[in-house]
Amino acid sequence: MISLAKTVHDLLQERGETVATAESLTGGRLASLLTEAPGASDTYIGGVVTYATEAKVGVLGVDEGIVDEHGVVSAECAKAMARGVRELMGSTYAVSTTGVAGPDEQEGKPPGTVFVGVAGPDGVAAKELDLDGERKEIQDETCQEGLSALLDTIRQEETGLG
Amino acid sequence: MISLAKTVHDLLQERGETVATAESLTGGRLASLLTEAPGASDTYIGGVVTYATEAKVGVLGVDEGIVDEHGVVSAECAKAMARGVRELMGSTYAVSTTGVAGPDEQEGKPPGTVFVGVAGPDGVAAKELDLDGERKEIQDETCQEGLSALLDTIRQEETGLG
Repeated sequence: MISLAKTVHDLLQERGETVATAESLTGGRLASLLTEAPGASDTYIGGVVTYATEAKVGVLGVDEGIVDEHGVVSAECAKAMARGVRELMGSTYAVSTTGVAGPDEQEGKPPGTVFVGVAGPDGVAAKELDLDGERKEIQDETCQEGLSALLDTIRQEETGLG
Repeated sequence: MISLAKTVHDLLQERGETVATAESLTGGRLASLLTEAPGASDTYIGGVVTYATEAKVGVLGVDEGIVDEHGVVSAECAKAMARGVRELMGSTYAVSTTGVAGPDEQEGKPPGTVFVGVAGPDGVAAKELDLDGERKEIQDETCQEGLSALLDTIRQEETGLG
């Protein structure tokens, strides 16, 4: 996972761009990965961990209508979180995570139901994941997938395919 | 470290209280510890990772005068971060970390120069740490110290000694 974060850092640094994070179920793990290596401050602006729904609404500006209609475990919420933190931090890109780490289900959805969002200059997208494993494995795998989705987006922008 | 976070969680749960985090050099590690165990959402509202100075000012409301006069590696900044995130998240308590993880010095201060802040109903305080070790050790030790300072504050409130 360090190498994926390092790849993101190197690519952003080369382009003079930055990233921010908005995390729910990963609870700071994505930010930790992006701040692991020295020099991280060149490309990582900051992030928000919004564990409580009120924090998603109040701090990240997630629309209450999205929470009511789709729930916080949804692609819509992941997209709104990514968009919200990108605006809050003023970064080029943003990655978000929301979902069920377990062991209990949430909003009637089983552990492993996860959404990652990526926002960038060209817009915002979300990806649904269906992960297996214990709480920690789900949290770690979500970070991997978030970084991977971010990397895809940056590379698409690079080649003009985004 | 898990046991310290667990102790904090159990104590807060018993009291129906909550905590939020504001992190600089620990970059999400403190939030990760507080969200490690199932049920964390009962007591952990959320947190902000403000790696960039602009995020400390813009998101947490740290006064620019504090940054100009004392720098971000200061007790004043740690206190302002804790106060800011407590207000932002609406939590009972808040913990903050700011300092130099290394390997390079920052604001003329060597790696290991660290401040942790704790805000609660009775006010805000900061503690200066002088830590040894590599980047990761400094980050981990800062988390320990932050949780320990938080626990002291909660217990003081409990016994009326705060």
